[in-house]
Amino acid sequence: MNVRRLAITAGEPAGIGPDLCLMLASQPCAHQRVVLTDPQLLAERAAQLGLKVELELFDPLQPATPQLAGQLSVLPIPLEAPCQPGILDPRNARHVLQMLREAGEGCLDGRFDAIITAPVHKGVINQAGVPFSGHTEFFAELTGTEQVVMMLACPGLRVALATTHLPLRAVADAITSERLERVIRILHADLQGKFGLRQPRILVCGLNPHAGEGGHLGHEEIEIIEPLLQRLRSEGMQLDGPLPADTLFTPKHLQGADAVLAMYHDQGLPVLKHMGFGQAVNITLGLPIIRTSVDHGTALDLAGSGRADPGSLRVALDTAIAMLESGNHHD
Amino acid sequence: MNVRRLAITAGEPAGIGPDLCLMLASQPCAHQRVVLTDPQLLAERAAQLGLKVELELFDPLQPATPQLAGQLSVLPIPLEAPCQPGILDPRNARHVLQMLREAGEGCLDGRFDAIITAPVHKGVINQAGVPFSGHTEFFAELTGTEQVVMMLACPGLRVALATTHLPLRAVADAITSERLERVIRILHADLQGKFGLRQPRILVCGLNPHAGEGGHLGHEEIEIIEPLLQRLRSEGMQLDGPLPADTLFTPKHLQGADAVLAMYHDQGLPVLKHMGFGQAVNITLGLPIIRTSVDHGTALDLAGSGRADPGSLRVALDTAIAMLESGNHHD
Repeated sequence: MNVRRLAITAGEPAGIGPDLCLMLASQPCAHQRVVLTDPQLLAERAAQLGLKVELELFDPLQPATPQLAGQLSVLPIPLEAPCQPGILDPRNARHVLQMLREAGEGCLDGRFDAIITAPVHKGVINQAGVPFSGHTEFFAELTGTEQVVMMLACPGLRVALATTHLPLRAVADAITSERLERVIRILHADLQGKFGLRQPRILVCGLNPHAGEGGHLGHEEIEIIEPLLQRLRSEGMQLDGPLPADTLFTPKHLQGADAVLAMYHDQGLPVLKHMGFGQAVNITLGLPIIRTSVDHGTALDLAGSGRADPGSLRVALDTAIAMLESGNHHD
Repeated sequence: MNVRRLAITAGEPAGIGPDLCLMLASQPCAHQRVVLTDPQLLAERAAQLGLKVELELFDPLQPATPQLAGQLSVLPIPLEAPCQPGILDPRNARHVLQMLREAGEGCLDGRFDAIITAPVHKGVINQAGVPFSGHTEFFAELTGTEQVVMMLACPGLRVALATTHLPLRAVADAITSERLERVIRILHADLQGKFGLRQPRILVCGLNPHAGEGGHLGHEEIEIIEPLLQRLRSEGMQLDGPLPADTLFTPKHLQGADAVLAMYHDQGLPVLKHMGFGQAVNITLGLPIIRTSVDHGTALDLAGSGRADPGSLRVALDTAIAMLESGNHHD
């Protein structure tokens, strides 16, 4: 594979994002890691953490180059206000949005090959008067994508969600045949196109306990999920289910499966985060670009302390690289 | 501890229940295991499995005695129709219900100290014209108990459920302050009385993803769960939450917790069964008796094959014994 350019957005400057980006540099990389943030902030945080990191200004006109341990490229996105670790400042919301925009546009215009995002703080962006519901929605809008699918992955398990951040009482009505079909098509297409799986096998959870137990515990399996799976199977997709969520996440069932589709957030993520804590990564499917992310928040209390764990950002970086290697991407 | 009498209901005769009871006998027991089923069935199944088990008729007037490997007591509950492994016969529904009744009444009148149940087949009992929704409901009715709580346990984790076998769309409305209070009081009292935990610490899940994220993803946490927890904390209960279900099941949170209270079936059980597969046990709280159960079904296709795994029944037996040892029970 050619050397790639990986845009790493440092996210909320008062959080652990800048720390994690600097910690990434402790290892060499066969590709070029480009951190999007304020170089001055990175330098200060590196001093605070006692890390020696060589920051080089990113030049998109130069060919991409692998990096030694201790090396990072930076695409400068100036802070709007001075930053103290742990202390949010709404004036820096624009700084955060600007780095996301640069990363997204850079992927669309070919300056970057993938985006890896460190955590942002939704609350402070909204406080600054900018409606913002998350990275995922931001990149969907930026790239003109109507439907995206959130998938979390850790070693040994991938879990995609049919619905994400909905109150529990709204979930059942949101499980329509149309939505499920869009989600499964995106999941299937991206497992092929972005993960290089020719014939992905997907385990689909039921909505109700025991997958409805033949209609005794709900009818959505019989009326919506099962007919849709049958139709999609007739196109050649490998879809098992609807299966009871409480037995599906056992080794016997997971063996040979490439992904699980959960109907809602707390059906699929507790077991994934239990299995993959510190090693889980969030992947947005359906975008025309590759985007992976940490599975944790800004951890304001740990910023600048040296106690933040770069595990998830490292896995997010590795996952993006693996997707570039195995997917059907132009070289 | 005195030697105890443990009623083990073999459950559906065509399923793996009789096999598992026989397999239990491969180990000695400091207490008296009394299997409730047809002795003839046990003898036939033992021959089929090539197991040598000495069956002794249970006499409640004799003192309880420990058992060597290979020994079991039997309280005869005759089959109503001949039984072929793997083939359900509605005529034997009465046989199954009769063993549950004997075990329950035997616990109430002092012949038994605890009940351990192998799986029954709900469908065939209902097919026989007897409304039956499960062991739990059966023993609740038999003992005149208004509210019971289902708890699953495996090494390192206990998960109790605020709601159990409800369609997902009915869950949010079922989470009332009254129900939650009853459930928490039962859970708390039984962790003390049946598990010997003086000051049990319970982690309570939110209903919505991210525990409602401050009202952005649902209001039940703010309106129902949090005020109730505050009130119960003021009585001295140790209740953490409402917590996001996807981060609660990580080592950091589980450390020092005695049980998790999930709001619904698929929020709590996927991770428990993932952790404890083959070693998980179902415990009914709130009953005036001790009742534990396997966490699996009748596995009709494995009956008589020798390939059934007695792990869960063994843990159910051990759990009942541990509860007798640590709880506040008369000796």
